[in-house]
Amino acid sequence: MLNLLVILSIALVGRQICQRLKQPIILGELIAGIMIANMTIVQITEPISFIARLGILILLFSTGLALDLDELKRLGKSSAAIAFTGAFFPFAFGYTLAVLLGFSLLPALFIGSTLIATSVGINAEILSELKMLKTRLGTIIMGSAVFDDMIGILALGLLGGLVAGSIILREILLLIVLTIIFFVLSIVFISRVVKRLLRRVVFKTENLIIFGLIIALLYALVAKQIGLELLMGAFLAGLVLGQAHYSRDLLENFSVFGESFFIPVFFVTIGMRFELGALASAGLFAVLLTIIAISGKIIGCFLGGIISRLKKSEALAIGIAMVPRAEVALIIMGIGLANNLIEKNIASAILAMVIVTTFIVPPILTRTLKKTAGVSRMVFN
Amino acid sequence: MLNLLVILSIALVGRQICQRLKQPIILGELIAGIMIANMTIVQITEPISFIARLGILILLFSTGLALDLDELKRLGKSSAAIAFTGAFFPFAFGYTLAVLLGFSLLPALFIGSTLIATSVGINAEILSELKMLKTRLGTIIMGSAVFDDMIGILALGLLGGLVAGSIILREILLLIVLTIIFFVLSIVFISRVVKRLLRRVVFKTENLIIFGLIIALLYALVAKQIGLELLMGAFLAGLVLGQAHYSRDLLENFSVFGESFFIPVFFVTIGMRFELGALASAGLFAVLLTIIAISGKIIGCFLGGIISRLKKSEALAIGIAMVPRAEVALIIMGIGLANNLIEKNIASAILAMVIVTTFIVPPILTRTLKKTAGVSRMVFN
Repeated sequence: MLNLLVILSIALVGRQICQRLKQPIILGELIAGIMIANMTIVQITEPISFIARLGILILLFSTGLALDLDELKRLGKSSAAIAFTGAFFPFAFGYTLAVLLGFSLLPALFIGSTLIATSVGINAEILSELKMLKTRLGTIIMGSAVFDDMIGILALGLLGGLVAGSIILREILLLIVLTIIFFVLSIVFISRVVKRLLRRVVFKTENLIIFGLIIALLYALVAKQIGLELLMGAFLAGLVLGQAHYSRDLLENFSVFGESFFIPVFFVTIGMRFELGALASAGLFAVLLTIIAISGKIIGCFLGGIISRLKKSEALAIGIAMVPRAEVALIIMGIGLANNLIEKNIASAILAMVIVTTFIVPPILTRTLKKTAGVSRMVFN
Repeated sequence: MLNLLVILSIALVGRQICQRLKQPIILGELIAGIMIANMTIVQITEPISFIARLGILILLFSTGLALDLDELKRLGKSSAAIAFTGAFFPFAFGYTLAVLLGFSLLPALFIGSTLIATSVGINAEILSELKMLKTRLGTIIMGSAVFDDMIGILALGLLGGLVAGSIILREILLLIVLTIIFFVLSIVFISRVVKRLLRRVVFKTENLIIFGLIIALLYALVAKQIGLELLMGAFLAGLVLGQAHYSRDLLENFSVFGESFFIPVFFVTIGMRFELGALASAGLFAVLLTIIAISGKIIGCFLGGIISRLKKSEALAIGIAMVPRAEVALIIMGIGLANNLIEKNIASAILAMVIVTTFIVPPILTRTLKKTAGVSRMVFN
């Protein structure tokens, strides 16, 4: 209980400071965690790590909930192209860097994967502050961020499967087939059953949240059963429920529910994994990783934008906007750590990359977007 | 995770059924727990019991939040007199029964204490369904229920202290003095600091809930430190914050937060402690305990009502209204069980008493209150 008290208190302080400074609250929670990382009074006990795991589950479930499959289809090609090139380059750069530094296959894949996904949450915050969420540029950015989140989560699911089993081509193929079946079954068939059940839940906020948790846990356990990552299932559950009638209520209530306990505990405990000593021993790696994270994303997205026939200034703005990594990177890092695939110093380097990309981008992006939006408004209006 | 999934699913089913049947949802959760009590697939793991403990903490914090100290003062004497006699008789009956059956001092005190407190939640539900919450009779009933809750929680606090230390008169006196100091300090002094802090919390639902959790945990740990029960502290924290500016928001959000996860887990795990075999071995005790619970409460409250110069029919209606026991009884039972002061068969008997009093009273009460309210409306309007 004392551990929990300290974690919640420091999380609240971190959140408050970031809200005052108009920084993303996730940064406050991470840094709060780092501050108490090396104090012996706070320990991540078994119940707290359970709560943190529920936290990621709820986070990914909410991410799924927030997506609108129809709108994603509408945004279509531009976003998908940008997301794909923007995911591929940092992944390839990260993987190559890791291999050059002597890592073996799985750890290198993990390191590359942490660079894939842009933080949807941070992007949404910045864009909504600039009132750009509904503009063409804003829509493309959000769409790309969402698509590369999906790529990141898919990579995570596959990596989870690889970790569980040995690495044989036949098993990988089986896993991919199972994943596709799981996706299709969920979206086409199960979603109807779930929606019907949802309508039966007497409309009360509490019951709605309990129902959401049940579906998230159920999908997570099914995903685990077929060899994917638990979190992949939670994300899919969110995606399925996100198309249902009550999805807006569900999303609103769920994000309050998660943000007021589980998710802060997750990010603080992630921050607590940071070790200054460990980072020092991986100093060069941290610097290279951060440079790759930034340059890989900008190059990838810029190319994707050009392919999609956007203007150069727009493609560049999108590239900058997509730099921040947070949720998915931290989740992949946590799983790599839990499976002993990456060591503490690598985890600390990834944490440093997350903090730098999340910290540096918002002010730059705000300026770039204002400029580009001004220009594109003149051109397109 | 699988355990949690089963517990949440069965809780939702239980809640739904009770809502359809217009029964208190707590009953649904308890019975759901009893249904899976003897299944080997579900186990109360360490994280789940931690979540359940957070559940009681949140429950008592919310109870404290819901109280209005000023209104309690206004209701004053009648409610206090009814609460006192209505708490004393069942306690004395229960204690005597336990002693007669050969229990030693502490277990007998625990058994007596489980009979003290009327369920505020169930009373509030019934009265609000009858639209009687704001009537004179309704106000007296709610006031009495709240007062005897406080007596019950105070007894729990003192019992917690007794369990921790040896039973020496000097220590008991010290504990009482410390309790009073804690109460006075909290309400007079700390409440100002807390309110000032509360005003600083940027007004966002998530932060409000985190802040509430922090204060509840803090008070709980302080209470533990001076030798009281953790829960006593959480209740006091609620009482202090209940007088603050944001208390209504806090209460609403907190009850949704608690009810959508922690509190159902608590009640289901309480239900899971039930053992049919154990109950059979304590069958006579269960029957006697239930009879005492009902008759002691009705006699006590009736006498209190007569002392307060209420009409006989009103005093009787209040007595019947005060019969249901739930939250506090189950909490005291849980603590007795955790400290090996009562055995499984006694716990099962207490559970049976809770279910019978909660199940039987609402329909009878609805009829009695309608009659009495009709009469007293004619007399007092």
